[in-house]
Amino acid sequence: MGDTPAFEHAVRVGWADCDPAQIAYTGRLPLFALESIDAWWQHALGGYSGWYYLETELGFGTPFVNLSMDFRAPVTPRHPLMCEVYPTRLGTKSISFAVKGRQDGVLCFEGSFTNVFTQAASVSTREPPPEIRAIIEPLIRA
Amino acid sequence: MGDTPAFEHAVRVGWADCDPAQIAYTGRLPLFALESIDAWWQHALGGYSGWYYLETELGFGTPFVNLSMDFRAPVTPRHPLMCEVYPTRLGTKSISFAVKGRQDGVLCFEGSFTNVFTQAASVSTREPPPEIRAIIEPLIRA
Amino acid sequence: MGDTPAFEHAVRVGWADCDPAQIAYTGRLPLFALESIDAWWQHALGGYSGWYYLETELGFGTPFVNLSMDFRAPVTPRHPLMCEVYPTRLGTKSISFAVKGRQDGVLCFEGSFTNVFTQAASVSTREPPPEIRAIIEPLIRA
Amino acid sequence: MGDTPAFEHAVRVGWADCDPAQIAYTGRLPLFALESIDAWWQHALGGYSGWYYLETELGFGTPFVNLSMDFRAPVTPRHPLMCEVYPTRLGTKSISFAVKGRQDGVLCFEGSFTNVFTQAASVSTREPPPEIRAIIEPLIRA
Repeated sequence: MGDTPAFEHAVRVGWADCDPAQIAYTGRLPLFALESIDAWWQHALGGYSGWYYLETELGFGTPFVNLSMDFRAPVTPRHPLMCEVYPTRLGTKSISFAVKGRQDGVLCFEGSFTNVFTQAASVSTREPPPEIRAIIEPLIRA
Repeated sequence: MGDTPAFEHAVRVGWADCDPAQIAYTGRLPLFALESIDAWWQHALGGYSGWYYLETELGFGTPFVNLSMDFRAPVTPRHPLMCEVYPTRLGTKSISFAVKGRQDGVLCFEGSFTNVFTQAASVSTREPPPEIRAIIEPLIRA
Repeated sequence: MGDTPAFEHAVRVGWADCDPAQIAYTGRLPLFALESIDAWWQHALGGYSGWYYLETELGFGTPFVNLSMDFRAPVTPRHPLMCEVYPTRLGTKSISFAVKGRQDGVLCFEGSFTNVFTQAASVSTREPPPEIRAIIEPLIRA
Repeated sequence: MGDTPAFEHAVRVGWADCDPAQIAYTGRLPLFALESIDAWWQHALGGYSGWYYLETELGFGTPFVNLSMDFRAPVTPRHPLMCEVYPTRLGTKSISFAVKGRQDGVLCFEGSFTNVFTQAASVSTREPPPEIRAIIEPLIRA
């Protein structure tokens, strides 16, 4: 993809997200990252809200099997949190994403996330539909 | 204010917000309403994120003393949730807001919310600063 | 019910629940109250987790149509939050609850909550099953 | 520590935690793990709620620099979620924890978490107080 900018999802960070240390509570950051992956699906596939659309309209789910995050700088309400999302690998039955959260140009966290493809409303893994694979493959970055 | 449109805050509703009934969990709806009031302060005063700015930069807080909400229709990820917010009353030491949440033109919930003005980092009530009163008064609606 | 103590649900309040004012964020309090009503159902009916059991095993749901809460004193991590729950009214298709949250004997919030009975996975209202009515009726308080 | 059982924290999983796939939403699981580490501090040090006590009474904080979680089996409201927590390493300015979440004896997730010690209300790292080190060291497991 060369230097094409990847997808970014903006998160509003507010008082509600902050703990007594006056920064966003650590437990909110995986939620922000996941919301950004959800928004990536919406961006990639169109339709409405990501996983909800996949599950209720397209008949498959993508449960998480792993997540790993490094926290680099505090997240605060002073700036929007820009979450860059891109897929890093598409296996036969799994997909991995990178998410990088930045505020005012500063990297606040980065993480990797792996999901498996399943039949909707089940835990049976499956291959993603070919048309979904065709959409995702050109978006993969190292 | 006649028919001047009031402030609206858009909330992205996603899979994360939904419960097994496939609609946004009731407990999320007060959070959406509160976030919208927080965004209203940001809109009215400028600066960054609402209550955080009030507390850390302007030296006062607005804790809640009451909230009441009626739920009219389910909230889903199919549309953005547009939350209209306007103050309905400004007392000597309190302020009340109305919030109306709509999706695709349908009223999903409406509520009333009352806060008192306090010194930052305390529970002592106080009057709002005159310059804040001057900003809020023209925005009040019945 | 005379002076029979009503059901109480204990909530652990932690750092995660607190905002920069060092008290539980207002938006968490409806969540605590709702969790306590969920726990009341589990207490009243047995089985596991309240609404989940109702919906998946008993075939009915109880969506909220209204909630109203008054906030009397800050909630902090210094004590467990004891939430007293009791039904105040059982109509033909609805039920109302009172919830009172206390810490160390001090009333922190109180609220009223009304749900309608519906068919599971639908918005069609219905009467509650007679055996459920028989369990609830003796628990009602003014 | 041989086979001394480590600390376990019980989490109530309810309807509020579940998504439309009828299992606890992935984004809730880091919150459950963090709450369990917070409870571990309370267990280890006494006093009240963990991080809040550390920050407001003992004068130090423990912000996260990393978390990594593997998800093994779905978490549901059918059983309490028992979260085993133990420290795996105590460095000069950091501490690492393992958390294992189980329901009805089945491992649902496991993760590792690393915090640094800081001065309360700051980002300056520091060594933990010697009396805290003395409490933690005997609790470390491989």
